[in-house]
Amino acid sequence: MTTETVLREKLATCTRILAMQELIGLFGHISTYDPETGRVYMCPGMGSEKTTVRPDDILPLDLDGKLLDGEAHVPIEWPIHTVLHAKRADALAIAHLHSPYATLFSIADREYRPVTLQGSIFGAGIPLYDQPHLVKTPEQGRDLANIIGDGRAIFMRGHGVVIVARDVEEMLFASLLLEDEARKWVMASALGEVRPFSAEDCAAFGAEADLPRRAHRAWPYLKGMEERWNGQPGTGAIAFC
Amino acid sequence: MTTETVLREKLATCTRILAMQELIGLFGHISTYDPETGRVYMCPGMGSEKTTVRPDDILPLDLDGKLLDGEAHVPIEWPIHTVLHAKRADALAIAHLHSPYATLFSIADREYRPVTLQGSIFGAGIPLYDQPHLVKTPEQGRDLANIIGDGRAIFMRGHGVVIVARDVEEMLFASLLLEDEARKWVMASALGEVRPFSAEDCAAFGAEADLPRRAHRAWPYLKGMEERWNGQPGTGAIAFC
Amino acid sequence: MTTETVLREKLATCTRILAMQELIGLFGHISTYDPETGRVYMCPGMGSEKTTVRPDDILPLDLDGKLLDGEAHVPIEWPIHTVLHAKRADALAIAHLHSPYATLFSIADREYRPVTLQGSIFGAGIPLYDQPHLVKTPEQGRDLANIIGDGRAIFMRGHGVVIVARDVEEMLFASLLLEDEARKWVMASALGEVRPFSAEDCAAFGAEADLPRRAHRAWPYLKGMEERWNGQPGTGAIAFC
Amino acid sequence: MTTETVLREKLATCTRILAMQELIGLFGHISTYDPETGRVYMCPGMGSEKTTVRPDDILPLDLDGKLLDGEAHVPIEWPIHTVLHAKRADALAIAHLHSPYATLFSIADREYRPVTLQGSIFGAGIPLYDQPHLVKTPEQGRDLANIIGDGRAIFMRGHGVVIVARDVEEMLFASLLLEDEARKWVMASALGEVRPFSAEDCAAFGAEADLPRRAHRAWPYLKGMEERWNGQPGTGAIAFC
Repeated sequence: MTTETVLREKLATCTRILAMQELIGLFGHISTYDPETGRVYMCPGMGSEKTTVRPDDILPLDLDGKLLDGEAHVPIEWPIHTVLHAKRADALAIAHLHSPYATLFSIADREYRPVTLQGSIFGAGIPLYDQPHLVKTPEQGRDLANIIGDGRAIFMRGHGVVIVARDVEEMLFASLLLEDEARKWVMASALGEVRPFSAEDCAAFGAEADLPRRAHRAWPYLKGMEERWNGQPGTGAIAFC
Repeated sequence: MTTETVLREKLATCTRILAMQELIGLFGHISTYDPETGRVYMCPGMGSEKTTVRPDDILPLDLDGKLLDGEAHVPIEWPIHTVLHAKRADALAIAHLHSPYATLFSIADREYRPVTLQGSIFGAGIPLYDQPHLVKTPEQGRDLANIIGDGRAIFMRGHGVVIVARDVEEMLFASLLLEDEARKWVMASALGEVRPFSAEDCAAFGAEADLPRRAHRAWPYLKGMEERWNGQPGTGAIAFC
Repeated sequence: MTTETVLREKLATCTRILAMQELIGLFGHISTYDPETGRVYMCPGMGSEKTTVRPDDILPLDLDGKLLDGEAHVPIEWPIHTVLHAKRADALAIAHLHSPYATLFSIADREYRPVTLQGSIFGAGIPLYDQPHLVKTPEQGRDLANIIGDGRAIFMRGHGVVIVARDVEEMLFASLLLEDEARKWVMASALGEVRPFSAEDCAAFGAEADLPRRAHRAWPYLKGMEERWNGQPGTGAIAFC
Repeated sequence: MTTETVLREKLATCTRILAMQELIGLFGHISTYDPETGRVYMCPGMGSEKTTVRPDDILPLDLDGKLLDGEAHVPIEWPIHTVLHAKRADALAIAHLHSPYATLFSIADREYRPVTLQGSIFGAGIPLYDQPHLVKTPEQGRDLANIIGDGRAIFMRGHGVVIVARDVEEMLFASLLLEDEARKWVMASALGEVRPFSAEDCAAFGAEADLPRRAHRAWPYLKGMEERWNGQPGTGAIAFC
């Protein structure tokens, strides 16, 4: 199999899994990058059906956001992806999601810190892109990338999140994990003061080192779940932010 | 196709989509208006099944709430719709919903401000109709319409919301968007102080200008979702307010 | 059709609807009373499957909780029902539910007041049965009934609710309505101070007078929804309290 | 039937029920113990599909966590189970779950107390294992077991819960009950101050004595529910913690 075949297949599967988990839908897009060819592979954007995305539906782009094959709407926020793919050797898979819970950290005045052991992969914190607009130009993409630095994620004010990973499996795992972190913080705060882990605890736990193994073990589990899913929409499923 | 055929088809589709999203059910009704003929088209009211509404089920009314064809219960709150259709040239589609989250702004002592970029279409704020009764007479309808002014929405105390739009697609999009705004505010407030966008931020973002494009792009997406929906009720789905 | 046939049919349908709405399941039971014969009809209790209850499964009891026909577990809290049926001429249908949201008013230190227009049928307030035990004897049943007085409902501390109605349709409607009230209060309190309606507002609205019409219009809607329901359990559906 | 056949069958059923209830999934594992043979039976660990676990999938282990038959990943936190099975004669069934709500008590600064009558089986309180790491060695398992003492459960910081029971039926019942307790506390706290039951109230209620009867009555109910379940994943179902 060629690299392109593998990446298209993985990205389509990941799109369907995220749709099943209601982290992608009317909005949101994910991408992966082949540094050999300089090609970016991206799922279709706003208004396309995500639960049935197949490898042939994946859009091949160059680093200027130009569609290299066929005709389709390229998501207008393509610079979120291309700037990061070009800038960081470890940014081979990127998700831009309007995750229902994680996005709340872009709305409330609250600094994110990990509350679960697994969440300690985000132990360096997650910065906020505070600009009240979309990221539609390479310049805006560079601003965003500069704030992320070598971090793993960023919140976009009143909008969504970006997650940076080394491959599609880690991007999926980190996306689900961040959503779970946010949901737990929201729910736990009803009980009392939330006690996040310190940066030291996070470093000591070593989730970072274990991430590849965990992400690649979760992948077939989630893939199998998506295969037996009947594709029914959840109700109240549209996350607009 | 005649205008009537088009409007009946659109309104029936919109009713089913809102039912799938659990924004309409035992209660709630939506309408669209044909200024050429002065006819209002409205979905059936309380107690009718919304998930299977077809174009033939749509009720044609005049601006006095009189049923122009067939026999059916006309929703008792018809003046919500007719007064606005008659008064404003841009009020061609109107939703009265008991949306589970948006209605909370009619219950809690909290002024609504947009918390997401897309929510900035509500940047002018949303007033409250504070009367503790239904809107069953043209006079009450005029009171309600006066409070809305040229706005896009209103909260009705302990009851629900009204959304005013230029066409059915925008009415659907704005209804889902407002619900998402309210859900995000409720959830985000668990994390800390919610930071809404200022009126200036909202104006600068330009969601207003982009609304028609977005709403018309969301429409086939939501229509497709409804077509593959198996019609199963969510549980706990009855929004009574 | 005999009264017994009618009441068995209605009660079985109501049980299935409440199961669909996740207000009854492993726990909870409902009853209706025929004053002509002094017979109480009750759905099966703990551990019986509620989503498939048919008229033949309904238990006929006398006012001492004795099973009049067949063999079955009589719910141990039968005195909740029998004492009220015997005492009040308007208590012809009674629900004892572990409703997920309504039960919260028996756990938190908060007096219930209606927050929606329809909720104003509970405008007289809802008292609390503060005893930390089940209601298993006629004496305990009388204590409970005394606290209810001529009211429509009661909260049972750390346990559930009892709802009193004139017929099965009103019992179903009031049960769903109270759950919706509680859910709205919980959610709205995230936004700010909840503003319940005053007793005067409630009386003025007249929900009381309109209840029979509304409840009997909701009945076929809910019955139809249950008929097309595929019976699938919601997840996380067990309300234990 | 041999004891092994019975235990494998029960544990597989319990795994599927917990999967349906979304208390087990990508993570979490349960076990039961046969003191006659010293064998531990455990469900498969991370990454295995839980909704379809059958008796043959159950892993037989010795008390050192060694797989006695076949080839499979043994869950790395096997010492949670083996130390408790070896130490306590009443620890014949053990669940380690990442329950979405119960885990919140390991995140927020809040001491757990029962809020429902049935929850009074946890009336002795539930301690916290405050170490920021997994339990992967017998020594860590002994630390955990020492903190549990002769208690029924423990919270693990930013991670999950352990529940100790006399048989699989009680383990299932207690797991669902603790989750319901936590959900109720979270939701009720929106209304006002939560009023847990005192240790005296809990002792007086006698839930302890009634637990075997209740758990064994709930078992066929839950088993039947799982049998008619179509196995569809809930959305947003991954509890990571």
